[in-house]
Amino acid sequence: MNKRFLQGDFLLDSQTAETLYHQHAAKMPIIDYHCHIDPRQIYEDKPFDNLSDLWFQGDHYKWRAMRSCGVAEQYITGDADPDEKFQQWANILPRLIGNPLYHWAHLELQRYFGIDLPLGPRTYQEIWKKANQKMSSMSPRRIIEQSNVEVICTTDDPADDLRWHQLLQADESLSCQVFPAFRPDKALGINLPGFPDYLRKLSDSSKIVISSLDKLKQALTARLDAFCRLGCRTADHGLDYVIFEESLDADAIFQKALIGQAVAQKEADALKTNLLCFLASQYRQRGMVMQLHFGAIRNCNPAAFDALGPDTGFDAIWGKADSGKNLAGLLGTIEKDGGLPKTILYSLNPQDNAQLDAIIGCFQTGECPGKLQHGSAWWFNDSITGMTEHIINLANFSALGHFIGMLTDSRSLLSFTRHEYFRRILCNIIGQWVDKGEYPRDMDTLGHLIEDICYHNAKRYFLPEQQ
Amino acid sequence: MNKRFLQGDFLLDSQTAETLYHQHAAKMPIIDYHCHIDPRQIYEDKPFDNLSDLWFQGDHYKWRAMRSCGVAEQYITGDADPDEKFQQWANILPRLIGNPLYHWAHLELQRYFGIDLPLGPRTYQEIWKKANQKMSSMSPRRIIEQSNVEVICTTDDPADDLRWHQLLQADESLSCQVFPAFRPDKALGINLPGFPDYLRKLSDSSKIVISSLDKLKQALTARLDAFCRLGCRTADHGLDYVIFEESLDADAIFQKALIGQAVAQKEADALKTNLLCFLASQYRQRGMVMQLHFGAIRNCNPAAFDALGPDTGFDAIWGKADSGKNLAGLLGTIEKDGGLPKTILYSLNPQDNAQLDAIIGCFQTGECPGKLQHGSAWWFNDSITGMTEHIINLANFSALGHFIGMLTDSRSLLSFTRHEYFRRILCNIIGQWVDKGEYPRDMDTLGHLIEDICYHNAKRYFLPEQQ
Amino acid sequence: MNKRFLQGDFLLDSQTAETLYHQHAAKMPIIDYHCHIDPRQIYEDKPFDNLSDLWFQGDHYKWRAMRSCGVAEQYITGDADPDEKFQQWANILPRLIGNPLYHWAHLELQRYFGIDLPLGPRTYQEIWKKANQKMSSMSPRRIIEQSNVEVICTTDDPADDLRWHQLLQADESLSCQVFPAFRPDKALGINLPGFPDYLRKLSDSSKIVISSLDKLKQALTARLDAFCRLGCRTADHGLDYVIFEESLDADAIFQKALIGQAVAQKEADALKTNLLCFLASQYRQRGMVMQLHFGAIRNCNPAAFDALGPDTGFDAIWGKADSGKNLAGLLGTIEKDGGLPKTILYSLNPQDNAQLDAIIGCFQTGECPGKLQHGSAWWFNDSITGMTEHIINLANFSALGHFIGMLTDSRSLLSFTRHEYFRRILCNIIGQWVDKGEYPRDMDTLGHLIEDICYHNAKRYFLPEQQ
Repeated sequence: MNKRFLQGDFLLDSQTAETLYHQHAAKMPIIDYHCHIDPRQIYEDKPFDNLSDLWFQGDHYKWRAMRSCGVAEQYITGDADPDEKFQQWANILPRLIGNPLYHWAHLELQRYFGIDLPLGPRTYQEIWKKANQKMSSMSPRRIIEQSNVEVICTTDDPADDLRWHQLLQADESLSCQVFPAFRPDKALGINLPGFPDYLRKLSDSSKIVISSLDKLKQALTARLDAFCRLGCRTADHGLDYVIFEESLDADAIFQKALIGQAVAQKEADALKTNLLCFLASQYRQRGMVMQLHFGAIRNCNPAAFDALGPDTGFDAIWGKADSGKNLAGLLGTIEKDGGLPKTILYSLNPQDNAQLDAIIGCFQTGECPGKLQHGSAWWFNDSITGMTEHIINLANFSALGHFIGMLTDSRSLLSFTRHEYFRRILCNIIGQWVDKGEYPRDMDTLGHLIEDICYHNAKRYFLPEQQ
Repeated sequence: MNKRFLQGDFLLDSQTAETLYHQHAAKMPIIDYHCHIDPRQIYEDKPFDNLSDLWFQGDHYKWRAMRSCGVAEQYITGDADPDEKFQQWANILPRLIGNPLYHWAHLELQRYFGIDLPLGPRTYQEIWKKANQKMSSMSPRRIIEQSNVEVICTTDDPADDLRWHQLLQADESLSCQVFPAFRPDKALGINLPGFPDYLRKLSDSSKIVISSLDKLKQALTARLDAFCRLGCRTADHGLDYVIFEESLDADAIFQKALIGQAVAQKEADALKTNLLCFLASQYRQRGMVMQLHFGAIRNCNPAAFDALGPDTGFDAIWGKADSGKNLAGLLGTIEKDGGLPKTILYSLNPQDNAQLDAIIGCFQTGECPGKLQHGSAWWFNDSITGMTEHIINLANFSALGHFIGMLTDSRSLLSFTRHEYFRRILCNIIGQWVDKGEYPRDMDTLGHLIEDICYHNAKRYFLPEQQ
Repeated sequence: MNKRFLQGDFLLDSQTAETLYHQHAAKMPIIDYHCHIDPRQIYEDKPFDNLSDLWFQGDHYKWRAMRSCGVAEQYITGDADPDEKFQQWANILPRLIGNPLYHWAHLELQRYFGIDLPLGPRTYQEIWKKANQKMSSMSPRRIIEQSNVEVICTTDDPADDLRWHQLLQADESLSCQVFPAFRPDKALGINLPGFPDYLRKLSDSSKIVISSLDKLKQALTARLDAFCRLGCRTADHGLDYVIFEESLDADAIFQKALIGQAVAQKEADALKTNLLCFLASQYRQRGMVMQLHFGAIRNCNPAAFDALGPDTGFDAIWGKADSGKNLAGLLGTIEKDGGLPKTILYSLNPQDNAQLDAIIGCFQTGECPGKLQHGSAWWFNDSITGMTEHIINLANFSALGHFIGMLTDSRSLLSFTRHEYFRRILCNIIGQWVDKGEYPRDMDTLGHLIEDICYHNAKRYFLPEQQ
C-alpha cells in the first residue's frame, strides 16, 4: 500500500471499501443526535474572526494535546494572540502522529477550507492566511448546510428557558432541524455544592416550588413537557459511575439536602437511582430515547481546577469496579417497573465494551430492532482503533446492522467531519469482511446496510414519526 | 484479497495457513472435552423434524440475536410454527454481519446440508426445503460420525443416575467415546432456594444421608467414584465470580443452611471455598481435570426471567473486582494443601485474559506440559477476534504449543463446526507468523504443532492412558 | 508476504518501515534508563562460563516458560549441569511459538554470537558448541559496547553503599555512563517482616538514627543526596497497587511499627502515601524523574515461594479495583503540594493502558514536553502485541512524538536486543500509517521523530544538562 496523505481513499484500504463509502456512506445526511453545540450560535449565525477562535475555543481535546507537548498555558487558555496560538498548535501538530486530532485537523482544513497542505511549522503561515481569507464566507449555518446535516440534538439543562430553540423552530430559513435534549445532571447532583441554588432556578423555570422529592419530579416533568413541545426526543445523563442503590429512603435523603445537611455518597446514589428510574418511565411514556454516559473522573487535577475551572481538559477515565453489576441491576429494575425506554449506553472505559454489549443483549425486545444501543466510541475513544474495536465488538455481540451510528458529542461545528471519519472506518471494516469471504459480495444488501448504519437507523430510532 | 464467500480458504489468508489447515488441522479427530449435549439424545439417535427444531431449540445465542433485531418473542421461544421461526431468522441473518452466528449458520448449512447459498429473505424458502429434505438422513450419531468426533464429555449433575451414559457405554455400535463430566454446582449452591431439595436428591442418589458437611463430602465422593467408573475424567464448576474465603467455619455454615436458616454471601463463599478445595484434592487423586468457569452475571433481566426462566439468553459478563487476587489465593491454597489437579480456567470477561495467563504461569510444574490451561475463548468470546486475542495472549504469556485447544460448550450437535472455525483461525495466525519471518518455515515442526493443539494435546491431557 | 526467519526485515512489513528502522532507529545509541543489571558485574567485567549461565541465571521469564512446558525444576533452578539445562531449553523452545522469548533468544544468538540457526532439539548441540567458543571473547563491557549503550541506570537500595558505582565512576575506560537509581521500596515496606532490620541498615548507611518518621525522611534525603552525587537522576517505586490514603496519622503509624506493633493494610497505605508525597517533592527539587511501577501480585504460589523464594517466576498481574481513582488522587495531591516531578507510570495490567493515558493527560504542563510518561510495555507485556497496543494507545491519547521509548527492566546484559525489538515495532507502526496515507510521507520529519523516540527524548528527559 502506498497512498498519498489524506486523499479520497483515506482509511479505505480496498476497492470494496471505497465503493461502499463513496456510493453509499458519503451520500447520507447527518443525524447528530448528541452534541454540545450552542443553539444560540446556530441562531445568530455569526461568522468567525479567525481559525484560532474557531479551533481552540472550548476545545479541551486540543488543549490537552498542547500541554502534552509542553506548550505554555498562555498559548492554550491564556491571553496570547490568536496567531500565536495557531503557531504553537502548528508547531506541535507533527508530534501528534497517529492521534485523531492530527487526522481531524487535516480533514477540517480540506473539507471546509479547501486546504490540502499538511499543517506544521513550515506551513502555518500560508495556512493561517488562506484559512482566514475563507473565514468571511463561513458561518455556523453554512457549515451545517455544507455538512449535509439533517438533525441536531443539542444538550440543555431542564431549567433552561429554551429561548434559542424557540427562535430556531420559528426560523424557516434553517436547513436542518434543531432539537433540545434534556440533560438533568444538576437536578440529580444532590451532593454538589450548587444544588440548593439549582433547585431555586428550576423552581423558577417550572413554576413549581420544589419542597419535596415529589415536587422535584413534578418540576422535571413540567420541563420535560416543555422540551417535548420543541421537538425534544432524547434525554442524557452524565454519571461518574453507574449508580444502583435501592436500600435507602430517597424522600428522606432529599429532605436532608433541602435543609442544607450533608449527604453521604451512598445517600446521593440512592436519590439518583430513584430519580433515574422515575425519569426513565417518563422518557418511555413520551417515546423518548434515554442516553447514559458514565465512567469519567472529573477534575483530576485540583491545582488546574483551581486555576482554570471545569471542562478545561483535566478529566480522565474511571475504571469503577462492579459497574456491570450495577448497570444490570439498574436496567433490570427499570424494565420490571414498567419497561425501559429506548436506551443508549456509553462507557468512557473501552475495557467495558464486551461487558456492556453482553448486558445490552439481555434487554432487547420485540418492540423495535436495536432497542438498546451501545453508543459510538466516546471522547477519548474516538480514534481509529477505538472505533474499530467498538464496531467489531458490536458485530461480535449483537446485530451491527441495527447500530444507530455516529454522533459528534462536540462543541465545535467543524466536528461534523467525525461522521466522515466514522463512516470511512465502518466501510473499511465491512469491505474487509467481504474481501475475506466472511460475508457475501451482495452489493445491494451491503449498500443498504451501510446507509442504515450511517443514517436510516438513527432516523428511525429518534424520529420514527418522520419515516 | 478477493475471496468468494466461505470457501475452502475461509479465514485462511495465506498459502501457509491453507497448507497448515488442510494438510494437518482438518484431518484431526475432535475431542470435545466440554459440551452440554444430552447423552440421551446420542443414545436414542432420533432424527430431527426440521431445521428449525435443530437450530433453535435451546439455542439462546440465536434467541438473543433475534431479540436484538426486534423479532417478537413468539417467533423465538414462543409457539410460532417452525417455518415461521425459520423465516424470521432468515430475515434478520444479514443484519448479523460480522457475528459468529452468521459464519456458523453458513458453515453448518455447507457441512451438514451441502447448501452453499447465503441465507436471507430471498433464499429462505429454497434453503428450508433443501435442508428439510436432507433431514431424514441425519441423526445425532450420523452428525457425530461425519464430524470425526472421537471423544465427547457431557455435563452431568452428581445426583444424576447416569442411566444414558451406562447405555452408551454398553453400546458397541457407537463411533465415539462418550463420558460424563462431574458438575456439582447445585451441591455448592448453599444460598440458592432449591438447596435443601437438592441435598435430598443427592442423598438418594449416593445412599448417604447428608447431615453434615462431612457427609456431603462423602456423598459427592461416592458419586465421583460412580462417575469415574463410567470413564469420567473431568469436573466442571460454574462460579459467578472466583470465590476465596477462608476466615469462616464452613461446617457451622452448612449446619445453618441445613436447618433452613439464611446464609450470607460471605458465608456461602466460605462454604464454596471449602468444598472446592476438598473436591480439587479428590480430582487430583483420580487424575481428573478440574475446569473452573467464572465471570457470568446470571438472569440480569428479572422481567424476562419471570416470563421465560433461566438459560434463555439473559446472562451477561460480570467484571468482578479482584478476581485475580481471589484466584491466586484459591489456587495457591490448593497447591499448598496437596497439590492442584490439572486445571482449566475460563473467564467470561475477555479483559481477564492477561491476568489469567499470568496467574496460570505461577502454577505450572514439571508434572506435565501445560498442567494449567487457559480454556478456549468462551461463550460471548467465541468470535474471530475473541479467539484470536485469546490465542495470541496464550502465545505471549505461555507455551502455545501445549494448548489443548477447542471445545464447543454447546447443546447443539451442529456446533462441531466451531472446531473447524477455531482451527482455521489458529492456522491463520501461525501461518502469518511464519510468513512474516517470526518463526522458521519448518513445515514438519509446524504440522506437528498444529496437530497437537487441535487433537494430541487434549488427548494426552484427558486420556493419558490411551496414548 | 514471504519473509525468511528473522532477517533484516524482521518485524518491518514495508519499505517505509525498513527505511525508518535502518536509516534512523538502528543508528541510535541506547539509554537504558531502568534496568536491574548489577553494577559490580559491569565493573568486574568477568567473562561468562557458558551460554547456560548467561541465559538462565536469574531469568525467571525463561524459568516460567520451562515450567509451562513441564520441564522438571532440576533443569530450571536446580543443580542439573549447564549443558543439560540448555538442552531442555532447546527442546521446549519450538513450543514457545509466538512468545517474545522465542524472538529474543534468536535475536541474541544472531547479534552476539553470529548464530543464524533456529534453536531446537536438532540444533542444540551445534549451537551450544558455537556459542561457547565465542564466550571467551565476550564480557559485560564488550556486550555493552557492542550494543551501543550510552547510559545505564541500575536499581539500588537507599542503604546500598554504592561502592561499585563509585568505582565505575572513577573508571575512565568505561564506554558508557552508569548511574544508580534510587529504589526505596524497603523503606516504605512498613508491613513487611524485615522492616525494623531494614531501618537499622538505613540508619547505619545514612548515619541518622531513625527514631521517627521525620528521621526516616532525613535518612532518605541524605542517601538521595549521596545517590545524586554519583549522577543518580531517577527514583523508582514498586507498588503492589496504587495507594492513596490520607485520612490517618502517618507519624503515629510509624511509631507503632517502630515498637514492633502490627500495622493494618490501611495504615501501611497511609504511611506509604505520606512518604511517597514527601519523596516526590524531593525528586522534583533535584530535577529527578520519579518512576512508579504497580499492578503485580507477588509470590502467588506459597508452596513455590517456600521452596524457591522471591523473584523466581511466581508473580502475576493484579487487576486492583479503583487504581485509577487512587492514581488520580495521588498525583493530584502531589501536584497541588508543590508540583509533580517528571513522572513515569507503569501498570502491569495492560487493561489499564487507556485509563493511565487519560490520567497522564491531566497532569501535563508547559514545564517540558511529555512531562508525564506512560512507561513502555512492561514485563509480561513486552510482546509484539503488548508493545503495539501501548504505542497505539500513546498515539491515540497523547503526543507519541514525545515518548521516551524503551527500557529493558532486565537483569541480563543480552536484553539490550529488546531495544531493537521495540524500535522495529515502532518503525513498523509508523511506516504503516505513512503507507496508508494517515501521515505525510515527509521522511525528514519522520526520521527525526523516530530518532527522538528511540534516543533524544530520553536523553533530554533524563540528562537535560548534556543536551
